[in-house]
Amino acid sequence: MTKVFDFKEVSKHNTPSSCWVIIANNVYDVTSFLPSHPGGPKSILRLAGKDATADFDPIHPPGTLSQLPPTAHLGTIDPSTLPSPLQPALPSSNTNNPIPPPPTSLSQCLNLHDIETLATSKLPHKAWAYYFSAADDLLSKSLNRTVYSRILLRPRIFVDVTKCNTSTTFLSHPVALPFYVSPAAMARLAHPSGEAGIAAACAKYGVAQIISHNASTTPEAIVAAASPTQVFGWQLYVQTNRAASEAMLARIAALPSIKFIVLTLDAPVAGKREHDERTATALSADVVVGSGSGTGAEERAARAEGGVGKALFAGTAMDLTWSATLEWLGRHTNLPIVLKGVQTHEDAVLASRYPGVKGLVLSNHGGRAMDTAPPAVHTLMEIRRYAPGVFERCEVWVDGGVGRGTDVVKALCLGARGVGVGRGVLWGLGAGGVEGVERVFEILKGEVETCMRLLGVERVEELGMRHINARAVERDIYEEVLDLKARL
Amino acid sequence: MTKVFDFKEVSKHNTPSSCWVIIANNVYDVTSFLPSHPGGPKSILRLAGKDATADFDPIHPPGTLSQLPPTAHLGTIDPSTLPSPLQPALPSSNTNNPIPPPPTSLSQCLNLHDIETLATSKLPHKAWAYYFSAADDLLSKSLNRTVYSRILLRPRIFVDVTKCNTSTTFLSHPVALPFYVSPAAMARLAHPSGEAGIAAACAKYGVAQIISHNASTTPEAIVAAASPTQVFGWQLYVQTNRAASEAMLARIAALPSIKFIVLTLDAPVAGKREHDERTATALSADVVVGSGSGTGAEERAARAEGGVGKALFAGTAMDLTWSATLEWLGRHTNLPIVLKGVQTHEDAVLASRYPGVKGLVLSNHGGRAMDTAPPAVHTLMEIRRYAPGVFERCEVWVDGGVGRGTDVVKALCLGARGVGVGRGVLWGLGAGGVEGVERVFEILKGEVETCMRLLGVERVEELGMRHINARAVERDIYEEVLDLKARL
Amino acid sequence: MTKVFDFKEVSKHNTPSSCWVIIANNVYDVTSFLPSHPGGPKSILRLAGKDATADFDPIHPPGTLSQLPPTAHLGTIDPSTLPSPLQPALPSSNTNNPIPPPPTSLSQCLNLHDIETLATSKLPHKAWAYYFSAADDLLSKSLNRTVYSRILLRPRIFVDVTKCNTSTTFLSHPVALPFYVSPAAMARLAHPSGEAGIAAACAKYGVAQIISHNASTTPEAIVAAASPTQVFGWQLYVQTNRAASEAMLARIAALPSIKFIVLTLDAPVAGKREHDERTATALSADVVVGSGSGTGAEERAARAEGGVGKALFAGTAMDLTWSATLEWLGRHTNLPIVLKGVQTHEDAVLASRYPGVKGLVLSNHGGRAMDTAPPAVHTLMEIRRYAPGVFERCEVWVDGGVGRGTDVVKALCLGARGVGVGRGVLWGLGAGGVEGVERVFEILKGEVETCMRLLGVERVEELGMRHINARAVERDIYEEVLDLKARL
Amino acid sequence: MTKVFDFKEVSKHNTPSSCWVIIANNVYDVTSFLPSHPGGPKSILRLAGKDATADFDPIHPPGTLSQLPPTAHLGTIDPSTLPSPLQPALPSSNTNNPIPPPPTSLSQCLNLHDIETLATSKLPHKAWAYYFSAADDLLSKSLNRTVYSRILLRPRIFVDVTKCNTSTTFLSHPVALPFYVSPAAMARLAHPSGEAGIAAACAKYGVAQIISHNASTTPEAIVAAASPTQVFGWQLYVQTNRAASEAMLARIAALPSIKFIVLTLDAPVAGKREHDERTATALSADVVVGSGSGTGAEERAARAEGGVGKALFAGTAMDLTWSATLEWLGRHTNLPIVLKGVQTHEDAVLASRYPGVKGLVLSNHGGRAMDTAPPAVHTLMEIRRYAPGVFERCEVWVDGGVGRGTDVVKALCLGARGVGVGRGVLWGLGAGGVEGVERVFEILKGEVETCMRLLGVERVEELGMRHINARAVERDIYEEVLDLKARL
Repeated sequence: MTKVFDFKEVSKHNTPSSCWVIIANNVYDVTSFLPSHPGGPKSILRLAGKDATADFDPIHPPGTLSQLPPTAHLGTIDPSTLPSPLQPALPSSNTNNPIPPPPTSLSQCLNLHDIETLATSKLPHKAWAYYFSAADDLLSKSLNRTVYSRILLRPRIFVDVTKCNTSTTFLSHPVALPFYVSPAAMARLAHPSGEAGIAAACAKYGVAQIISHNASTTPEAIVAAASPTQVFGWQLYVQTNRAASEAMLARIAALPSIKFIVLTLDAPVAGKREHDERTATALSADVVVGSGSGTGAEERAARAEGGVGKALFAGTAMDLTWSATLEWLGRHTNLPIVLKGVQTHEDAVLASRYPGVKGLVLSNHGGRAMDTAPPAVHTLMEIRRYAPGVFERCEVWVDGGVGRGTDVVKALCLGARGVGVGRGVLWGLGAGGVEGVERVFEILKGEVETCMRLLGVERVEELGMRHINARAVERDIYEEVLDLKARL
Repeated sequence: MTKVFDFKEVSKHNTPSSCWVIIANNVYDVTSFLPSHPGGPKSILRLAGKDATADFDPIHPPGTLSQLPPTAHLGTIDPSTLPSPLQPALPSSNTNNPIPPPPTSLSQCLNLHDIETLATSKLPHKAWAYYFSAADDLLSKSLNRTVYSRILLRPRIFVDVTKCNTSTTFLSHPVALPFYVSPAAMARLAHPSGEAGIAAACAKYGVAQIISHNASTTPEAIVAAASPTQVFGWQLYVQTNRAASEAMLARIAALPSIKFIVLTLDAPVAGKREHDERTATALSADVVVGSGSGTGAEERAARAEGGVGKALFAGTAMDLTWSATLEWLGRHTNLPIVLKGVQTHEDAVLASRYPGVKGLVLSNHGGRAMDTAPPAVHTLMEIRRYAPGVFERCEVWVDGGVGRGTDVVKALCLGARGVGVGRGVLWGLGAGGVEGVERVFEILKGEVETCMRLLGVERVEELGMRHINARAVERDIYEEVLDLKARL
Repeated sequence: MTKVFDFKEVSKHNTPSSCWVIIANNVYDVTSFLPSHPGGPKSILRLAGKDATADFDPIHPPGTLSQLPPTAHLGTIDPSTLPSPLQPALPSSNTNNPIPPPPTSLSQCLNLHDIETLATSKLPHKAWAYYFSAADDLLSKSLNRTVYSRILLRPRIFVDVTKCNTSTTFLSHPVALPFYVSPAAMARLAHPSGEAGIAAACAKYGVAQIISHNASTTPEAIVAAASPTQVFGWQLYVQTNRAASEAMLARIAALPSIKFIVLTLDAPVAGKREHDERTATALSADVVVGSGSGTGAEERAARAEGGVGKALFAGTAMDLTWSATLEWLGRHTNLPIVLKGVQTHEDAVLASRYPGVKGLVLSNHGGRAMDTAPPAVHTLMEIRRYAPGVFERCEVWVDGGVGRGTDVVKALCLGARGVGVGRGVLWGLGAGGVEGVERVFEILKGEVETCMRLLGVERVEELGMRHINARAVERDIYEEVLDLKARL
Repeated sequence: MTKVFDFKEVSKHNTPSSCWVIIANNVYDVTSFLPSHPGGPKSILRLAGKDATADFDPIHPPGTLSQLPPTAHLGTIDPSTLPSPLQPALPSSNTNNPIPPPPTSLSQCLNLHDIETLATSKLPHKAWAYYFSAADDLLSKSLNRTVYSRILLRPRIFVDVTKCNTSTTFLSHPVALPFYVSPAAMARLAHPSGEAGIAAACAKYGVAQIISHNASTTPEAIVAAASPTQVFGWQLYVQTNRAASEAMLARIAALPSIKFIVLTLDAPVAGKREHDERTATALSADVVVGSGSGTGAEERAARAEGGVGKALFAGTAMDLTWSATLEWLGRHTNLPIVLKGVQTHEDAVLASRYPGVKGLVLSNHGGRAMDTAPPAVHTLMEIRRYAPGVFERCEVWVDGGVGRGTDVVKALCLGARGVGVGRGVLWGLGAGGVEGVERVFEILKGEVETCMRLLGVERVEELGMRHINARAVERDIYEEVLDLKARL
């Protein structure tokens, strides 16, 4: 005679050491079957101690249960003891809707877009506006994203992809992943842990981090807890007051975790970031009211200050030149120099020939400086076409618009050695502090590995032009034409 | 004197053997006129026994009724017996709206988009998400569709198109239609009849079917009721546990209905199908609550399992290589081998030179593996340009994004021999079981025939490049460039 | 002393023979000033007898009124007698909205899009669906429109454009305008006046008209009231029952107004016009209910009948061939033959070499036959590139997607002699009967004349390739490539 | 012992001469620190006399306050006296929304789009419609804007951009900025100050102004208050009544502020500006009702008058020709002649060879004349390709679609010397009178300077083709092809 179970009894067997499931009112002990389940043990354990009928039935061929040993069939369930069916986990209004509901927790974030959505729902307006904003009409910010989507990948078959190695080196320093944290300012606007929180996540995932000149935490504090293998760079905006810059370089020299200087050149003046400026405009209304003498002129003066972005540029030198600046910098640091903000092949050639310059970052400053400046992918392709020798003399890194692991891989195929992620990391910090940044790295690392395996590539140095079809972008990049004068 | 009829009397004459209609209050017997009606008998029979005034009047020249013999005029109707006018069949809110209301029955489905809409309204979320999902941002899924719409057709005139023959052969096996059922997994999620239900519809329409390795019904059950002329293939994902694969190949060898093996190569690891994974995320929330010890880490572990898609990939081998795998496979099957997932002309050339390989499927796995992988149309055009000899050595099939009969014809013009339909068939199954799949085949067959006739083509083997203008796609396909190394 | 007027008195002077206006509470008699007003007399007459202050003030420089003779100042108005300000003529919800409110009368229709909007609001669903519908996904219908918008015009300066002559000849018959009425079927669905109503409007504007084979009025009735200079063509769909076609040709031979036969070749079978078919589906539901024995199969059979479109194709021959059909036709008509539906340069060459063929219509049947068939502009450019001699041997007409006078002019620049308008005329008929069609012609004529003048062109025969920039389209047209066979 | 302050006391110290702030309940006197604050003094003064904790905390590294001298720490605040936190300045419904709320004051306008939005909310319908309207479907108006966004900029690094000089000369007359006010008509529709108001703003910013032939203020009144260095041009539409034009030229000759004549050629007839015409249509309904005898024909006649635009064209000559017109003009003016409305390189060549013609304006009349006429950028590139000598013989100016400082710079890079802004200035006038126009100039000047600095350019004459990537536009410009005749 078959034993009849109460649901309360069955529900206790919900562990790997005793795993029961109910299927069509029968109770089975599947503990010994867990290791050999074709779908893996977890998909059963998720249903351990429960009525698995709805999940089991549709995806198993008839006769599957007869493959279990007879002893696994323990008996039947008393249906009156079964709980009422679970509520659907997704709100019914979203059933079968291609657009998923906005995530409300880190664990619901499957990609970097989800992370941004979650951070947007949590951040104060001023912080959000500072991170979100880009110059003018956001055309470069948008182009930074879409240019990657226009490059197709070319997966190869019959390659053993059991192993996948994402490690590389930046200026000879080993890193676990080919992407790094771009020098984005003001991390504490997003979370109290700030740049030090980012550093903690970097330590866990072996990711390099470039500390912003405008970090909201001192460099000393950021690197304080760094592991010995952790790689940092430090971003320099040369100040009009050179002595201030020299003092900072001296402080950096005392921090052995910092391996290189990233001299930023793409923003001698602040771009016009209107989302950010509107915050200031809104605040200024309050100022004027407070002063009791508001006029249009005063209001405009307040507005003219701009937002967080413009404040950060106060004091930045506008008089940098190739020889004078690089010689001055050589006198004040022994670290390798990386030039950030290269946007033409002409400047890439010039930069790559300067002693002391070991790397370039092709960057339009995340679209925040000049609107309609070229995306780094354009500059990368421009250098490939007109000045491929640059890749021999320097490491070439890129940033801007990286939202998927496939974007990272595409940049590597085009010749980039490192790929910077800026906003994505800050959104991660805003979405969940250190854990949020870790989630960003976990997502990107998983996407890079899946992409490499599907391409049939084991190591990042194998990636090349044969793995992509960039023709839709190729036809848009700069073409050297004889200038007007030459034709007359 | 004219006879006056009651509507009840007239309404009985609503058959081909006695067909009366009321026009402008006169009653006519048009039975003998049915065969010679320029618009065909059905358009009259639809109005048999009814007041046809509104339908008749606008489309017939004056004097039409006078062409009827006088005896056809039976008399007049007693207007008081007429029913009140019919309600409009379409909801008034949709009157003259270019966007039709969503279909609520198979008979309202005029195309495959309607079929998907109907299935979406009927399927449980988990099944819908599994079928709908594709990798990352669905760019390849979308491109699979749009690439067909960018190819124009070139209709020829003055060709006798009385006959239209859609039959062809796949690896010498005759089939009635040039499209086939792609090996899409888990049909029972959509309908209890599952893959066997699809097979029944295939039998009726003479369509070939490739049985998924992850079918939710055993191959034996699927082919059990097959007709002797029905053509099946069987999809193989090689398992890490080779013995399991060898056992399956032995089972397949015992099924004479299965004519070839389709070795799938485009997904050594699962793509990141987020719609599918979100289902698991939603479910996992419940698991964690149930275990009483939910933490972020546990939640993420649950999520990391992914959805139905990832479960199916458990156990799939990642170590396949050209020689080793094809030699092993040759030892365990005598069937012709078709390699699925070829996405570059380089691999097409390699594949076409291996003995035992008789066919290729150009496929990006319905956009489900690598996002931004090329649509099959790209690979087809790549092979045409760089390696046309492949078409001589192998049959080349394609799949992905086929939603119209014109898409099938375009692929054939480009050199494909067979065109796989995956999601469309599953949506058909979800929309209406076996009858739903039949409706899919009926629609596609009708569209293919109309397209061939309008092109001025009688047989599928006549289709060629002269029937299409693919220039808008041609300029986007891969161009071989010298790699960086070669230029330095 | 200044006289004070009552508004009632002023308001009587609202004619060209006595025109008073109020400006800033002063009353002026501007009758004698009317002929010399820089803005023309009408803009004053519109305000005659009224308070013109608001209209006058913003657009006239200060001191303008002092240029009037002193006697023109009659006195002042008693403000208490002024009516309250007029309500704004546009609903306030639409104030300063780039999207205008839908027109509710012919006089509010400024362009053909307005005409379609107005007709859509007035037509019964069945008629609307028949006119609106096109094949499959409406891609060709849409491309027919957008291809014109991608061609730019090249206006020339310093050309005397006082005169503008839009007249031309079709097969040596003079017409006043270079556009004609395409043979669109079933005009009585739109308005009881049907094709005869269109003919009346054509008479007024000197427009040629091609009578549809499926006209809802007999050809005799259509041409009955034609003026002696009016030009008609008659469209022939060859019937399976050739005797029926021969009988029709005999009837046409008796109508001297009909100058040529337009043999339609682009639709040997009906295209799949889903908007039209949905009407039938909706109606069929009723049929099945009525028969009391509804099943899915019966419903589908009813649906398979299609809409108005498919009914019209019953009996159309599918076995036409170059020699047999053209010889047969030559035996049954002495009129010049125009072949409609040419969509490739290959067929254009073949057609232009047949004796008896005097004209071609490049047409994809308004996008109603084959979806993704090329727009006529493509075929025109194809012929220009590969077979320009065609233009010497035949007149080349085009149709499809013409919505603006600039579209007409662009087609003429590309080498077309006549430009067919089909749906636009039917929408005009639906929007307002004969007057609606006249409004369509008035709009298009005005737009053609403005376009010619702005181009600096007096006569249509002067238009040429130098007046357009079609490069954005040029790169998409068909390119002859060696077929696969030739490359192996 | 620490002093405890009342908030009322602290709030009095809100000036540069005594500036206190509260941070984390401590009160600091930061007056002496203001000049050396890295973010500039204003960002502190904004918070003077207030609780600055929220603003200070996130963006300063720990330890920042310890850099203040101990005496700066005055004491603590009595928290009970603090005001409740400020309401967020942006409406909560707009929090973290990429689309900002519409501006309600000039100070909230950060760009020209904001200015248009504000003006749209303030202008009467007739004025808005006249300014907003463009020909037909607004395709040229739209293309004028988008063509700029498709041109990318190429920023150079390591250039000293301390200085930025935007001055240039127009026909040897120095101007402070490379953009000028296009001759847009009817400024008093927007604001009572009209064209004289625009002139006042021009005086302040050193901007040149072309006075419209259809100005709503007399030229004498416009230039009355001009500064001696201010540069004006005067637009001429030659009248059918040449004597009227001659009289106007005589009046212009008496105004030394006017330096050149701009002969407009791109609109011998009015374009079809439907937004403008709909205003007239709406008004005409009223007219007809008033006359008591409304019929469709009368209504249409009223409509045919068109809007403001058509009224302005009454009397414009349509019979201009190269020799006759330029000779006539030479007899009636001694001023240099600028030809406006050149849209082809052929006309640019002809124009540049006429003595007396010193400048060209490449213009499609703001998209208001011929729809699908080329944007000025196209014509500029056409001249560069086919007739670069034009730039040697004439100054080449452009207008149409300029909405950003980057647009101005791009046009200069392509070879334009001056860049006209029309609608933008009128929207400024509508948004805020003289101050609104000043705001437009202030915005554009700031954007031009930022763009030049980010490009690494100090003076406008340095700008050239090497600073832009116009390849995406280049492939769409006119290509000379052999005309049909030549090929036969």
